[in-house]
Amino acid sequence: MLNPLLLPELREMLAERDAAGLRELTTELHAATIAEFSEGLTNEETWQVLDHATIERQAEIFAYFPIEKQVEMVQGIGKERMSRLLEEMPPDNRVDLLKRLDPELVEDLLPLVAKAERHDIRLLLSCPEHSAGSIMTTEYASLPEDISVADALNRLRTQAPHSETIYYIYVLDVDRHLLGTVSLHELILAKPTTRVRDLMQRDVISVRVDEDQEEVAKKMARYDFIAMPVVDPDNHLVGIVTHDDVIDVVVEEATEDALRMGGVGTIVEHYLDAPFARVWWKRSVWLSCLFIAELFTFTALAQFEHAIQALVALALFVPLCISTGGNSGSQAATLITRAMALGHIHERDWWRVLRHELLMGVALGLTLGAIGFLRAVLTPKSILGPVNPWSLALVISQAVMIICLWGTLVGAMLPLMFKRLGIDPGYASSPFVATFVDVTGILIYFSIAGMYLTF
Amino acid sequence: MLNPLLLPELREMLAERDAAGLRELTTELHAATIAEFSEGLTNEETWQVLDHATIERQAEIFAYFPIEKQVEMVQGIGKERMSRLLEEMPPDNRVDLLKRLDPELVEDLLPLVAKAERHDIRLLLSCPEHSAGSIMTTEYASLPEDISVADALNRLRTQAPHSETIYYIYVLDVDRHLLGTVSLHELILAKPTTRVRDLMQRDVISVRVDEDQEEVAKKMARYDFIAMPVVDPDNHLVGIVTHDDVIDVVVEEATEDALRMGGVGTIVEHYLDAPFARVWWKRSVWLSCLFIAELFTFTALAQFEHAIQALVALALFVPLCISTGGNSGSQAATLITRAMALGHIHERDWWRVLRHELLMGVALGLTLGAIGFLRAVLTPKSILGPVNPWSLALVISQAVMIICLWGTLVGAMLPLMFKRLGIDPGYASSPFVATFVDVTGILIYFSIAGMYLTF
Repeated sequence: MLNPLLLPELREMLAERDAAGLRELTTELHAATIAEFSEGLTNEETWQVLDHATIERQAEIFAYFPIEKQVEMVQGIGKERMSRLLEEMPPDNRVDLLKRLDPELVEDLLPLVAKAERHDIRLLLSCPEHSAGSIMTTEYASLPEDISVADALNRLRTQAPHSETIYYIYVLDVDRHLLGTVSLHELILAKPTTRVRDLMQRDVISVRVDEDQEEVAKKMARYDFIAMPVVDPDNHLVGIVTHDDVIDVVVEEATEDALRMGGVGTIVEHYLDAPFARVWWKRSVWLSCLFIAELFTFTALAQFEHAIQALVALALFVPLCISTGGNSGSQAATLITRAMALGHIHERDWWRVLRHELLMGVALGLTLGAIGFLRAVLTPKSILGPVNPWSLALVISQAVMIICLWGTLVGAMLPLMFKRLGIDPGYASSPFVATFVDVTGILIYFSIAGMYLTF
Repeated sequence: MLNPLLLPELREMLAERDAAGLRELTTELHAATIAEFSEGLTNEETWQVLDHATIERQAEIFAYFPIEKQVEMVQGIGKERMSRLLEEMPPDNRVDLLKRLDPELVEDLLPLVAKAERHDIRLLLSCPEHSAGSIMTTEYASLPEDISVADALNRLRTQAPHSETIYYIYVLDVDRHLLGTVSLHELILAKPTTRVRDLMQRDVISVRVDEDQEEVAKKMARYDFIAMPVVDPDNHLVGIVTHDDVIDVVVEEATEDALRMGGVGTIVEHYLDAPFARVWWKRSVWLSCLFIAELFTFTALAQFEHAIQALVALALFVPLCISTGGNSGSQAATLITRAMALGHIHERDWWRVLRHELLMGVALGLTLGAIGFLRAVLTPKSILGPVNPWSLALVISQAVMIICLWGTLVGAMLPLMFKRLGIDPGYASSPFVATFVDVTGILIYFSIAGMYLTF
């Protein structure tokens, strides 16, 4: 349980240079707990706390810091110490950190890191962003197939300290081809003389090193694995992706989706820490594009200036009619984008989606059209001017209905089209769809008005 | 790896009544793989496949079916068989299924289920939705503190078949109070004579049974746990939440957030399978509320009918000005809602957020205002009528600037206010914010117009 008194206590220990207390604290608490409390400390104070831990423990705690804090903290600690820390960090966290550092510094550091780790780092650094390789770790437990369970458990005892998880063990041939998996659970239950070969699961579910991290997360969620093996095209085991990295991926992807859909683009930084100018630039590019697109509402409306001149009441309903399209479009786009993200619908389902949303658009349109009809009939004569209230009610209700249907169809089809064009469907965001439907909605509204009213 | 030939092969085996082949298949493949292929089969065919597996294996495969298929498949299989299946299913999956069944049927079934399982079912059924208790399982491995590692491993060998995970073991006193945890990894590495008491981690991170599932997911993500103990208010261990359930929670919460933000409410079902009338109802309630709110744009515009009558050109810029507020509001609301979901900002940060968004709103407003100014100056004389182009440009640019600032502030503050009022901040969705800012935007626009133009 978190102890809210720990931070003041920690500061007191630091002030009093209570080495014994700090040593106890750094060994007894969970590394994540220590990392969390250190966020209340300056980087210098954090180093003072870490100094009381072994280098292994320092690396363990260090890996739980937010990546920004990690980058700040390694500035100026000296290459020697940094290379020791890097050697002890879990390979996936270590590479995340190295990717944020100056490439020149990384090149200076690598010769100082032990050879085995250096090879791992080069391998992981070379994996493209968002691939299975970019989130995998190279620390895993492996066994040959022809040994006994007793031998296997003995070998694991020596491998274990270097493995992020030993609960799934990978069975490899001499060329490191992945032959099967066996769980620690199964090894413990088996007779000591059983061969690993006879125990292992041969139907191995694995991912390719270049597979997208989102696909990896989906597979892990489907199979409920603690870890998933990552193989190269020749089925050599190159690493594993662990359950905790998958949670991070799911959260990261959900954030990206949410921001895209809200018309923010992708601002991955921490909200309060992100540099103002960068955020302004990202946000203003989006808003400016939408604004420029929205300028066409003026162009569209200008076509009907004479109609507004003749019947001012018509202009009063413009925002109502076009926002209907925006809202129904946002709704449909959100539903479809999310269903695609969950794997409930695919591009090939476009025809089913179209039929479904066509019916839904009509049903929703009738509902809103009915409300619009009532409102239009109730408009006071003083506002209407020369317009017949029943004609106006017909115009409003039909325009609302058709724009609602149109918004629904556009909102449903755009994400599928984007996907087809290789664009992330999330870009069919609420503001994007709304802007598109605003412009076309004006044309629909005045076309329908022209059928019932003379101007 | 998935074998695309398996489904036809499966059908052939069924047609030929190849009992040996089916038995082999149901034992050798991963339960999730069999469940996935069964989705291409009718429920009857699926039962024919399952018939060749042991009841334990049937329950294991069954738990991987989508919940809708589970509900369909248990219809009419007979209470006797169903109670056997329920006994063997993992406790958390079993309760998910029971919650979907007719409560009367559940009451009929419970007496047929073994007593220990019955107690578990009653406990889990009583946990409120979205609580830690609703996603926990009651199968976990536990040990007393005063035994040796050798004894502990022997005990685990007998407990193991009934535990969803034995990789974290919970150390309990005689009253089942949670004293500490020890990992299987640590037990295997330790000397056989060591006492569990001396090995266990006493700083136990646990969750309360009534804690929100989102909080549980956050804690699991922070500590990278495979499983997290769930305790009652007196610190008795009541269950564990496992890593796979947490991934499901994260995906579920992301879906709910996305749907709320897109103005869909919460439609949890599979997009193509959800009943039309239900989805129509949920969608139309949202759209109707937004539509009724949007009716105020008419009321607001009607106040300025005389202005539009005098200067028709003013009406042409209405959609442009108000949509600016909607877009900037959506953007701010999305950023803030997501930052709150990620735990980057909290209610208490409202003042920092307000200052930040005030500056950002001004910066964004100036950008859009400049574009608006250019566009307004370029308006042809024929459209402008009696309006001075420079005055119009001043009106448009100032209105766009102030509405953009207003939209940004409203979008940023609404999620924080909602949270304060105990409403999910996600309801400050893009359409909701846009509608609110549309109405107020009209008032701002015409107020500014009144300062520069006479009507």
